[in-house]
Amino acid sequence: MEVINDLVGYKNLKIIQNTEWFSFSLDSVLLPYFVENKANYKKIVDFCTGNAPIPLILSRKFKSKIYGIELLPEICDLAIKSVAINQLQGQIEILNMNIKDVRNVFTSDSVDLITCNPPYFKETANNKKNTNIQKTIARHEVRIKLAEIIEMAKIILKNKGSLVMIHRTERLIEIIKLMKDNNIEPKRLCFIYPKQGTLSNMILIEGIKNAKGGLKVLSPIITHNDDGSYTDEVLDIFNYEVSNENKKL
Amino acid sequence: MEVINDLVGYKNLKIIQNTEWFSFSLDSVLLPYFVENKANYKKIVDFCTGNAPIPLILSRKFKSKIYGIELLPEICDLAIKSVAINQLQGQIEILNMNIKDVRNVFTSDSVDLITCNPPYFKETANNKKNTNIQKTIARHEVRIKLAEIIEMAKIILKNKGSLVMIHRTERLIEIIKLMKDNNIEPKRLCFIYPKQGTLSNMILIEGIKNAKGGLKVLSPIITHNDDGSYTDEVLDIFNYEVSNENKKL
Repeated sequence: MEVINDLVGYKNLKIIQNTEWFSFSLDSVLLPYFVENKANYKKIVDFCTGNAPIPLILSRKFKSKIYGIELLPEICDLAIKSVAINQLQGQIEILNMNIKDVRNVFTSDSVDLITCNPPYFKETANNKKNTNIQKTIARHEVRIKLAEIIEMAKIILKNKGSLVMIHRTERLIEIIKLMKDNNIEPKRLCFIYPKQGTLSNMILIEGIKNAKGGLKVLSPIITHNDDGSYTDEVLDIFNYEVSNENKKL
Repeated sequence: MEVINDLVGYKNLKIIQNTEWFSFSLDSVLLPYFVENKANYKKIVDFCTGNAPIPLILSRKFKSKIYGIELLPEICDLAIKSVAINQLQGQIEILNMNIKDVRNVFTSDSVDLITCNPPYFKETANNKKNTNIQKTIARHEVRIKLAEIIEMAKIILKNKGSLVMIHRTERLIEIIKLMKDNNIEPKRLCFIYPKQGTLSNMILIEGIKNAKGGLKVLSPIITHNDDGSYTDEVLDIFNYEVSNENKKL
C-alpha cells in the first residue's frame, strides 16, 4: 500500500512509501545529519536513494542540485512522487539506473558530495531466496557491491569532494581499506550504539578524495534508552529543523 | 629522582620511576585492561615497555612468561628494579634492545600476545631539539616507527596471535592500513574520549594475525568529568583488582 508520511522533524516535508517494500529508517535521518554544512556544494549525488529520504532532507541544508540514483523503476516512481508533492522538482532529480553506470551520466571529477545508505549485507545463497525483491536489493549486495560503490564515487567525485556513508560497524575495516585503495581518505567517523553499554552497530563515515591523513572521531550517538524509546539525543536529531527554529526565537 | 610508586588499583604492585624522565600514565593502565582474558597465552611480549607498567599489570591477569623490550639502558634499569621489588623475576624478563632486532631473539610465529604503547608522534625537525632524550624517544618516532613495530609484530606473532596497541585517534587509519598490509586483521576497537561531548583522543585496538574480517567496536571510555576529575568508569578500571576482590565477598 502506498502511503504519504511526514519526514520526521522536517516541517512540511512529506515522503511516499510503499508499506510492502520498506520504510525509510533512522539511518536515512542520521546520514544527512552527519553531513557537514558546506555552503559551496554545487552538485550532490545520493546513491541507492530508495524513496529519496536523503535528497529530501539534504534539500533543507543545501541549495545545490541533488541527484538521487535508484535501480528499481517501481521505487524510482515513489521517489519521483515524493519529490513532486514537496515541489522540489527544480532541485532534486531522480535517475533510474545502476550505480555502475553513473560514469556515463556524470563527468569525472564533477561531484562535490556523494551520500550513500547502501545494502548492508553480503550476498549469500540464502538471501536470494527472499521473494520480496525490493527488500532483498535494498538490504543485500545482489545488484551492487561496496567495492563498486566506492570505485564509482572515486571517479565522479571532485578533487577534495566528500563521500558520506552509513554502514554496519562490523564492515568498517573493509570500508576504510576500499576508501584508501581509491584515494578517498577517511576523515570523520561517528559510531552509533543501539543502547548504553553495548557494542556499536552502525557507523557514519566521511572520506575525502585526495585528502591528507588525520582522522576525527566524533562523540558517539546512542539511539535507544533501556526501555526501547529513542534517546533525547536522537529526538533532537529528528527535530533538527524544529529545534534550530526554536533557537532563533 | 628515582621514586617507588604504587601501581594504582593493583594491590602490592610497585613501580620505580625517575621523575625527570617520565611517569607511567593512564594509557599504561587502559591497555592491559583492554587485553582479553585468554587462559592459553604462553608467551607475551611488551614492545616499548619503559619502566614496565604493562608487564607488571599483565602479570596479574596471566601466568604466561612476559618479555618487556626497552631500547634505553637507563630505562631498562628502572624496569628491572621494578620487576625485582615485586619479586616477579620468574615471570617477567626485561630485554635491552631495539624492536627492530626482536626477530633475532624470538622465533617466527612464536608469540601469543604483543602489547605496545608506542611513541605517538611522527618525527619532525622540531622534536629533535628536545634536550630530554628519554622523553623524546618515548613520545616521538625517532628510533622506531609505527610501520616497523607492526612489521616486527607480524613476524614473531603466532598464527591467530594478538597485537594490542594504544595510540592517538588521529592515526587510526594509518594503523589499520599497516595492520591490513601485514595480515593483522583489526578485530576490536575502543575509543577513548577525554570528556563527554568531545572528539576522541585515543584508541585501543586489537589485531589478530591471519584472522577473517569482522570488527567489534566496544562502548567508549570517557576519562574525565567536566571538573577534570576521573570518571567513575576510569576509577573502576584503576581499581580493577580491588573491585574484583570486593565482588567475591
